[in-house]
Amino acid sequence: MVEIERKFLVTSNAFKAESFTQNRIKQGYLSSVPERTVRVRIKGNKGFLTIKGISNESGLTRFEWEKEIPVEEAEKLLLLCESGVIDKTRFEVRSGNHIIEIDEFYGENEGLILAEIELKSETESYEKPVWLGEEVTNDKRYYNAYLSNNPFRNWALE
Amino acid sequence: MVEIERKFLVTSNAFKAESFTQNRIKQGYLSSVPERTVRVRIKGNKGFLTIKGISNESGLTRFEWEKEIPVEEAEKLLLLCESGVIDKTRFEVRSGNHIIEIDEFYGENEGLILAEIELKSETESYEKPVWLGEEVTNDKRYYNAYLSNNPFRNWALE
Repeated sequence: MVEIERKFLVTSNAFKAESFTQNRIKQGYLSSVPERTVRVRIKGNKGFLTIKGISNESGLTRFEWEKEIPVEEAEKLLLLCESGVIDKTRFEVRSGNHIIEIDEFYGENEGLILAEIELKSETESYEKPVWLGEEVTNDKRYYNAYLSNNPFRNWALE
Repeated sequence: MVEIERKFLVTSNAFKAESFTQNRIKQGYLSSVPERTVRVRIKGNKGFLTIKGISNESGLTRFEWEKEIPVEEAEKLLLLCESGVIDKTRFEVRSGNHIIEIDEFYGENEGLILAEIELKSETESYEKPVWLGEEVTNDKRYYNAYLSNNPFRNWALE
């Protein structure tokens, strides 16, 4: 399966009042190389294993494979992961025909809030809420795998 | 799950006459670091995704997690893998209460034949067929993930 996603910075907390669901997410990486990331995720009481390839030249399309796995297995696999487990809350907001996912990060990535919108094609249009800021789709620093190794709090130091 | 395996070199082809099943295996690695290998395997007409941790100090016990996946998905995931896909035939031979798995390698690992026996505990005894040679359980060069990056044919050159 191929996913088309556009990613944005979020400029205020206004999205929280519009959110219809939120889930705490913990995730780690068995591989964080962009060509083949392997992610272990616990979202609420469910576990997931997700494999992604590198994005195409436009940066919008990326191979993705995902399986739900028992949360107990996900917990064991998290112990194997590279250091830098990501901790965040995912909020979901309806916007026109789309759902926008907003991740508020904690721990070493505190201060970062990212929004993602999934589209059916690279040219599909979408409504843009006022709290949606700069697009960062092509900036690989905002990949969670990158944030795991180079957390947001350290960026100012670079 | 934790697996206890002992690994041996094989000294002759005599095992082939004793084998009750054989399957061609192709496998690649999404991660080949020993602390967290992620393997994609096609065995006959089945696909598997397997995650292994590093072995404990004795070298015998290793965390292992495996899920069967559709062969079409395994084929797509193989395309994402690191270079150095392993190609081999696995023979299975009954030996006393145990089954011994013997891997005859092709391609860049031609000339290598490895046997593996799975035990319930580190002290469990087992019958040793005459074609079972030197034990190499603790030699990490015989990990398939290592062979994928440093194939057997190149060893003589080192």
